Amino acid sequence: MNKKGKLFVISGPSGAGKSTVVSRAIEGREDICFSTSVTTRAPRPGEVDGREYFFISFERFREMVEHDELLEHAEYVANRYGTPRSYVNQRLEDGLNVLLDIEVQGARQVRKKMPEAVLIFIAPPSLEELERRLRGRGTDTEAAIEGRLIRARQEFQEADFYDYLIVNDDVDRAAAKLSSIIEAEHCRFEDWAVWLKSN
Amino acid sequence: MNKKGKLFVISGPSGAGKSTVVSRAIEGREDICFSTSVTTRAPRPGEVDGREYFFISFERFREMVEHDELLEHAEYVANRYGTPRSYVNQRLEDGLNVLLDIEVQGARQVRKKMPEAVLIFIAPPSLEELERRLRGRGTDTEAAIEGRLIRARQEFQEADFYDYLIVNDDVDRAAAKLSSIIEAEHCRFEDWAVWLKSN
Repeated sequence: MNKKGKLFVISGPSGAGKSTVVSRAIEGREDICFSTSVTTRAPRPGEVDGREYFFISFERFREMVEHDELLEHAEYVANRYGTPRSYVNQRLEDGLNVLLDIEVQGARQVRKKMPEAVLIFIAPPSLEELERRLRGRGTDTEAAIEGRLIRARQEFQEADFYDYLIVNDDVDRAAAKLSSIIEAEHCRFEDWAVWLKSN
Repeated sequence: MNKKGKLFVISGPSGAGKSTVVSRAIEGREDICFSTSVTTRAPRPGEVDGREYFFISFERFREMVEHDELLEHAEYVANRYGTPRSYVNQRLEDGLNVLLDIEVQGARQVRKKMPEAVLIFIAPPSLEELERRLRGRGTDTEAAIEGRLIRARQEFQEADFYDYLIVNDDVDRAAAKLSSIIEAEHCRFEDWAVWLKSN
């Protein structure tokens, strides 16, 4: 069977350990790639167009929004960021699983534009633990930590449309869960039609 | 979190390798048990009530059907077989995952009575391969093999309401898929409510 890839949207508050869990889960796998976003911000030294981001003008960005060429988009520090639909679709057609690391609002847009996307929320074991981890990093000011916690609490309340929840109480266990979800989603019923057709 | 178990219904034609895949997947796992059916047939020598089956009278069986005490039931060689709802529910409450190895018609009944059950169909790589395996066994007559193939073809056509399809082209790989499905289903969104409540 020539299998299409699937789009996996991964969200979770800063401090949930999302990127560690994701890198552990995709280590050595060649069937998974990250999506590359478009952005209106200028490239930083060393950044390459098409690698870190596709760097585009505000005008082109507006055009992409108008023509529904973005699966989701958001504004951050006066710049705009978005996920190009055609880029993602091409990778899915190539049989690659595409990972999209975005916030809850973006995930909601993806759910609408691509209902078959699989939405995964990575949460810390508790808000107390999240606070402990954020403080443990020693990188944020008190105000920044408070802000992150408020934001996290809000995200949890809004995330009720996700398909899966992974509580990151242990990185290995959480990574194994993410791998299982990716594997299980490839056994979903839609492949049935392919099986039947080939028989 | 005190987690409830989940009901996994496993179906697949004779020759798909279902029981090998299942035993490989649950090897050494104490969180998974098989359901025990009720039957009207007489116990065979060595069979223990409550272990192989719960042996009950036709009258009691009819009563269970009338009182909706069975998740599914079927007739086979003039005897009746069924899955007792309270038995399954008790195990789920105990936090055990319950496996139910039944045919497509039974699975359809379970879907109606317990929509949250997870339905998994284990298929051979192809009908040709199924035929090859059935002949390879050397246990069936030509007529029996023909009958099994007709039945398999019919089951495939009817199985479009299952959640997952596992193509058993390799026992280890198929068992890993089954394990992944069980793990992934425990990350489904319903656990979210538990997480939120505890925060």
